[in-house]
Amino acid sequence: MESSNERNARHKKAMQRKKEHVDQRIAAATTDKGLVVVLTGNGKGKSSSAFGMLARSVGHGLRCGVVQFIKGQWECGEHLLFSQHPQVEFHVMNTGFTWETQDRDADISAAVSTWEHAEALLQNANVDVVLLDELTYMLTYGYLDADRVIRVLSERPAHQHVIITGRNANDRLIELADTVSDVTDIKHAFNAGVRVQKGIDY
Amino acid sequence: MESSNERNARHKKAMQRKKEHVDQRIAAATTDKGLVVVLTGNGKGKSSSAFGMLARSVGHGLRCGVVQFIKGQWECGEHLLFSQHPQVEFHVMNTGFTWETQDRDADISAAVSTWEHAEALLQNANVDVVLLDELTYMLTYGYLDADRVIRVLSERPAHQHVIITGRNANDRLIELADTVSDVTDIKHAFNAGVRVQKGIDY
Repeated sequence: MESSNERNARHKKAMQRKKEHVDQRIAAATTDKGLVVVLTGNGKGKSSSAFGMLARSVGHGLRCGVVQFIKGQWECGEHLLFSQHPQVEFHVMNTGFTWETQDRDADISAAVSTWEHAEALLQNANVDVVLLDELTYMLTYGYLDADRVIRVLSERPAHQHVIITGRNANDRLIELADTVSDVTDIKHAFNAGVRVQKGIDY
Repeated sequence: MESSNERNARHKKAMQRKKEHVDQRIAAATTDKGLVVVLTGNGKGKSSSAFGMLARSVGHGLRCGVVQFIKGQWECGEHLLFSQHPQVEFHVMNTGFTWETQDRDADISAAVSTWEHAEALLQNANVDVVLLDELTYMLTYGYLDADRVIRVLSERPAHQHVIITGRNANDRLIELADTVSDVTDIKHAFNAGVRVQKGIDY
């Protein structure tokens, strides 16, 4: 049977190997650049992940812009926290979900005018981080012109990070992105009859 | 060729059906309860998602507790933003990653004393949301006793939400959880030689 000393020695050796491996990977990563991060998939945690990165960015003193496409009409915690923050410019397309409006022309016109805010942020070199929450639906529904969206994203200031959320991210968004995470449900409380919960879901 | 009016009418009908479906699902979800949300998988976005939910919770005026297990030694944006916030109690196991310490006994003792903070939060009915960042590793490595962790989580105040992050979430955690999201990498900037970026990664 292995003694505690032997176990500790084995642990130390394994961790030394792991440290070498991690250090090598860290040494290989030397570039700094503005990233496009896409959070997609059907699971819970895409927008919250984006707002977590926003929280980090605000914590570091970075200047941030948020544009939320299609949101429900209830008051969201992220809006309550960040919309009054001096480092954050916050815009919401407050028409409600597209199945609430049931009016395609009105949705398109809301999407286009909300996108103007995104474009202004993506052209402003003073803005370090831009969060485009639920942008993917605007492309899926054809409410925004994908060519224009891709072009504006590509031509943004080189240091600027962009975080994009929503299901079914467009292939061109995925191609453009530096980091893409897919969030899938293993379990979801809503399917067990639990209402959306303040703080967790909105 | 479909006219604009026809297209709009078709859209309206589809959205009416979608609204019926969504409304039915919302009507079926009637329970309120403290949730256990687990964010696991190898992709980027688990801790940031948890901190996004924390941002929402703080926005709504909820009282929150954070315990971070194994973190690097650099200053994280989430800590900068939340650790001084009057609604948030924030604890960090600041030993660094386990491959940095290379000392199993020291790691166990740090994990156990960090867990004490988690336990106090999980027994305090005044705390609405508890975030246990990177807890899963403490169970995988056997640094904490899984029976005790599961018992304390199960016996917490009924309204309290708990958010747990980390790769390879223990089966018993998944069983206990109400919502489990799996985050996988489709692409990661780090693999293309990009350094960890302030605001996005820490």
